[in-house]
Amino acid sequence: MTTRQSHLSNSLTLPEPAQPGQPLAQVDTPSLVLDLDVFEANLAAMQHWADRHGVALRPHAKAHKCPEVARRQIALGARGICCQKVSEALPFLEAGIRDIHISNEVVGPAKLALLAQIAAQADVSVCVDNMDNLQALAAAMAQAGARITVLVEVDVGQGRCGVTDDHDVLALARAAEAAQGLRFGGLQAYHGTVQHIRDHAERAARSAQAAARAAGYASLLRAHGITCERITGSGTGSAEFDAPSGVYTELQPGSYAFMDGDYGANEWSGQQVFGNSLFLLSTVMSCPAPGRAVLDAGLKSTTVECGPPRLHGRPGLTYLAANDEHGIVSVEAQAEAPALGEVLALVVSHVDPTFNLHDTLVTYRDGVVAELWPIAARGLSR
Amino acid sequence: MTTRQSHLSNSLTLPEPAQPGQPLAQVDTPSLVLDLDVFEANLAAMQHWADRHGVALRPHAKAHKCPEVARRQIALGARGICCQKVSEALPFLEAGIRDIHISNEVVGPAKLALLAQIAAQADVSVCVDNMDNLQALAAAMAQAGARITVLVEVDVGQGRCGVTDDHDVLALARAAEAAQGLRFGGLQAYHGTVQHIRDHAERAARSAQAAARAAGYASLLRAHGITCERITGSGTGSAEFDAPSGVYTELQPGSYAFMDGDYGANEWSGQQVFGNSLFLLSTVMSCPAPGRAVLDAGLKSTTVECGPPRLHGRPGLTYLAANDEHGIVSVEAQAEAPALGEVLALVVSHVDPTFNLHDTLVTYRDGVVAELWPIAARGLSR
Repeated sequence: MTTRQSHLSNSLTLPEPAQPGQPLAQVDTPSLVLDLDVFEANLAAMQHWADRHGVALRPHAKAHKCPEVARRQIALGARGICCQKVSEALPFLEAGIRDIHISNEVVGPAKLALLAQIAAQADVSVCVDNMDNLQALAAAMAQAGARITVLVEVDVGQGRCGVTDDHDVLALARAAEAAQGLRFGGLQAYHGTVQHIRDHAERAARSAQAAARAAGYASLLRAHGITCERITGSGTGSAEFDAPSGVYTELQPGSYAFMDGDYGANEWSGQQVFGNSLFLLSTVMSCPAPGRAVLDAGLKSTTVECGPPRLHGRPGLTYLAANDEHGIVSVEAQAEAPALGEVLALVVSHVDPTFNLHDTLVTYRDGVVAELWPIAARGLSR
Repeated sequence: MTTRQSHLSNSLTLPEPAQPGQPLAQVDTPSLVLDLDVFEANLAAMQHWADRHGVALRPHAKAHKCPEVARRQIALGARGICCQKVSEALPFLEAGIRDIHISNEVVGPAKLALLAQIAAQADVSVCVDNMDNLQALAAAMAQAGARITVLVEVDVGQGRCGVTDDHDVLALARAAEAAQGLRFGGLQAYHGTVQHIRDHAERAARSAQAAARAAGYASLLRAHGITCERITGSGTGSAEFDAPSGVYTELQPGSYAFMDGDYGANEWSGQQVFGNSLFLLSTVMSCPAPGRAVLDAGLKSTTVECGPPRLHGRPGLTYLAANDEHGIVSVEAQAEAPALGEVLALVVSHVDPTFNLHDTLVTYRDGVVAELWPIAARGLSR
């Protein structure tokens, strides 16, 4: 349980947003709430898909930053987790998770020193796309007496991080094999923009292209006598294609457990469909004019880079604009008008940065609050 | 000082992002940093402007959520602070600030109960735009034995919250005068969209329109024998016009202390100009291809609803796109190429939600870290 306490003369304390057993409509807002039935079905569906195709599932913790979510994924069979930053891993380590892949480059002495401390206590892998960085990583491990698995990040089409040149891939893999404190583990081959291609067939085709590039680099390494144990990548939008591809040994999806407006806009005509388990509860705080309502959830409760959130189960109501702490909602003439004080549910447009705004996840089943889970890695971006 | 601790078997702790006395380039990233010289000049300029025109300054704490910032504003002469949510006020109360205006409607029993507890300990005002809400507020105050000042929010053109009908204004003011536990204090008359009108002359004209509407409601009240002690509103973009308007008795600007890309895009040809005191430091974490660099600050360190952040002092470098934990930067052929591990400064596009992503503000003077200030109200949106 997270508690924000503020000690005044009379010891004024901010209560938890909800208590187990309360009906959902009594949750203080804005609050992120999780439908456990839908959440558990999402977890099971992705684990089943990975198992069926003989690949490991390593869900991404950047999506939720909540150790209790990761614990449940691992209990169902997930190999471990991904984190996107070193500091983000700390609450998951504290929660007893000991198999962590930092699916990103780690640059800078403070970060490398922390990474080495973590690697001394857990089974950790990290991405590398630069020889100087690989040497600095090796030096940090040597100094801490730690050992870490290195995955060479290859750019399979996204144009973000990662090497593309065969010589660079080989040189980094060989250097990782040679350096004390490092162990070459394989390839990071993630294509972020493919995840959100709306058309199902095009998404399949582009995922196959990315997988083919990854397979090419793996063949290159094998041709030079270097074993490529892991090829890790994939996400919620491409796992359907990547699991049976024969290329990936490990999947890194995160959003599938929750879903959001951006993933909801994909065409899901294939064998994988996930339900919305996550909602942002918000109270109607003003009904100043016909056709307009104002909610208490704005930019400090949800991000809008993928569009505004969507009102759930309320046809005719549209979340038009987010101010810092206001959501402006239009109400069509024929729609049921929201009442002052009414609690409405929103489907957020982008789950990852939205989780990062909240300290507590309120879980529920059948409309009744179950447990409160700390979003313990919120804000840990170093 | 904020400290995020993570206790493992070997007591693994996330260090502070900086230590006083360090050069700025050694701050761990992503981190928000504050140039104290520019910050202090901004504070003095706005206080001087308010003093010169005989209006009170009540800076908005939603911009920064940092009690140490508010303390310094009050030390220079500010009357108190604004908060946008009830829970947001708690860390400021804890810091000893006892004059707080909640510049927003407060709806729902949990929030009203907390507001009453705060009002029992401090001089608090709150906005109302609905009679049912006013009665609920009065009941909450009665139950706590507290008293609160009510400002009737009037919509002076923004189309967000606030009443527009003369009868509503009068009825709410009279009800506030009549109810035990309430005290009618005047009008909240804020126009948010005016703040960001780029053209200086148009911004002046639209600010004058909003002020004229506020003045009209005040005249209405006086004509009915109701004293309108406070007319509060204004922001960073309109304070230049609102202070000398003769209408507002109190200004609520927040961003002026820091500035951002959105306010920076306004035309500042008048008598008020503020400098950029706030920067987001970010490390170059990948230089995978000519013309492209990747920063370690993405959507979890800065929001982009007002556009991407801007590279400070590095011509030819453009922050193109923010992923969760990556910032993609294009590097023109003739520009100085960023080096792996280099720390760059970004001007964020929207200061309010960006502060809400961070726990610590690293202050500096002459390139050397001074103090670390907790952003204690981060995440307090209830």
